[in-house]
Amino acid sequence: MSLTVVGSIAFDSVRTPFGERDRMLGGAAVHFSLAASFFTEVRPVGPVGDDFGAAEFEVLERRGVLTDDIERVEGGKSFFWRGRYEYDLNVAHTEDTQLGVFGEFEPKLSTASRDADVLFLANIQPDLQQKVRAQCAGARFCGLDSMNLWIDTAKDSLLAAIAEVECVILNDAEIRQLTGEPNLARAARAVMDMGPQAVVAKQGEYGAALFTKEGFFALPGFPLEDVRDPTGAGDSFAGGFLGYLDSHDGELDEMSLRRAMGYGTVLASFNVEEFGTERVAGLSREEIDERLGTLRKMTQFEELPAVAE
Amino acid sequence: MSLTVVGSIAFDSVRTPFGERDRMLGGAAVHFSLAASFFTEVRPVGPVGDDFGAAEFEVLERRGVLTDDIERVEGGKSFFWRGRYEYDLNVAHTEDTQLGVFGEFEPKLSTASRDADVLFLANIQPDLQQKVRAQCAGARFCGLDSMNLWIDTAKDSLLAAIAEVECVILNDAEIRQLTGEPNLARAARAVMDMGPQAVVAKQGEYGAALFTKEGFFALPGFPLEDVRDPTGAGDSFAGGFLGYLDSHDGELDEMSLRRAMGYGTVLASFNVEEFGTERVAGLSREEIDERLGTLRKMTQFEELPAVAE
Repeated sequence: MSLTVVGSIAFDSVRTPFGERDRMLGGAAVHFSLAASFFTEVRPVGPVGDDFGAAEFEVLERRGVLTDDIERVEGGKSFFWRGRYEYDLNVAHTEDTQLGVFGEFEPKLSTASRDADVLFLANIQPDLQQKVRAQCAGARFCGLDSMNLWIDTAKDSLLAAIAEVECVILNDAEIRQLTGEPNLARAARAVMDMGPQAVVAKQGEYGAALFTKEGFFALPGFPLEDVRDPTGAGDSFAGGFLGYLDSHDGELDEMSLRRAMGYGTVLASFNVEEFGTERVAGLSREEIDERLGTLRKMTQFEELPAVAE
Repeated sequence: MSLTVVGSIAFDSVRTPFGERDRMLGGAAVHFSLAASFFTEVRPVGPVGDDFGAAEFEVLERRGVLTDDIERVEGGKSFFWRGRYEYDLNVAHTEDTQLGVFGEFEPKLSTASRDADVLFLANIQPDLQQKVRAQCAGARFCGLDSMNLWIDTAKDSLLAAIAEVECVILNDAEIRQLTGEPNLARAARAVMDMGPQAVVAKQGEYGAALFTKEGFFALPGFPLEDVRDPTGAGDSFAGGFLGYLDSHDGELDEMSLRRAMGYGTVLASFNVEEFGTERVAGLSREEIDERLGTLRKMTQFEELPAVAE
């Protein structure tokens, strides 16, 4: 039971109609790790600059995240993203991106991180995703995220990376773009034909859908009246999803994948309640399980009684 | 047990990447009535021209729809809509709308249609919706649809109409526009504060969400690899939803509303499989119940076993 994630470790400056934060802890591997930390031992792999200090490490370590594979590059600067959201939080604008040390990133996995049972390839250049996957040959389940940039500029490499993973976790627009198929059910089948046994279509506030060879499952987003900052929701989803799967001893069958979807949905919903990592860093497992129970009740409808025609 | 719907009875010319049809039977009251006909006696109320002939009446009457309140205006022309959909069927373009006899429509309800237990005010001018609601004072449950046009041009009248109904059934974008609130959970609560006990947010391929004072429920759209024509999906949803509620003897509580959401989802999914009314007109109750069972399985996840932290 161990989980490795490779992806960005960053500072984010974010402005939404509900507040703003300057240079707060962020990045895909960070949001993923904090979400997964409620289920398993998780090792983020990625570079930071010497602007990444004790306070940032402490947020991760307080949640039991193993930070040995975070590579601190002397004289370098950490990945930085600045963005703002409109009053309709579905509309985001990137104002600045500075790759910093991430621009020269060559993943070097320790023995411990290579021995992971479960692996998450967050949204990084797909050549790097392939290299990491090859180093973690023993992982029983590997998830992969990507983005429109790599579909546009490195599609062949991305397809090769996808062929080597068990599960693709993408926004539904990205799944359509990747396959050139506007019908999502067909698009998901086309992705499974590339190799993966499961496709998770992230649908923002609408929730997420799971396509497998056996079936289809979908969960709505957890309804929230107060959403402060959507940044990191997708990675928090992936952290809850893969974190649960890593903690699950048995076979990763349809029902365990569905339960993992539930945990992913719940972690994403907590993530967006406050800025950056603020909510998830201070969360408890009890709150997670309580919300999962609520989510389950929100999606149930009874067996049908005999109905008069 | 009887259901009245007031709305358009029309001819539609539709082109999608999967085919086209010229002047096929359509309109909100038609799609609604065919969907509801599997559950209850339904009376569509609305005007047609003398271009509306025996063939059109026969489609309705074969499904047991009571057509006495369809008003045939001599020398008039039926409502006509021409539209096309892109390869991505979420993108629709209206090419022509001719109101015909619908432009002068003043609802005249027979005693039988006024005595309805359940009423659906399809998307028509909200002054007319108010008049119909007043004529059906005894209905125990009334649903209302509308559109951006009336929110823009007749908002006060629409708010007055909404105050008199039990359930609003709108697209989520319309619910946001109506309330000026981008957060859907808040927007739905604002609609309930206007009077209705329930708000159904239609979300296209993402399904539909139900907001009530007691809770939240959501269903994904039924996943289909072959969608030919999305026209009428929302009205088919409303027909399944209100048709089931009318057939339900007991109290219209949370669980009966959830079951109704299931039937709405199923009828909408059948509707889009073929052009216009073609699929629903030839459907069987067995097919409906079978798909509802499948939908239920697609949304279930087990109670959680004890999970190692």
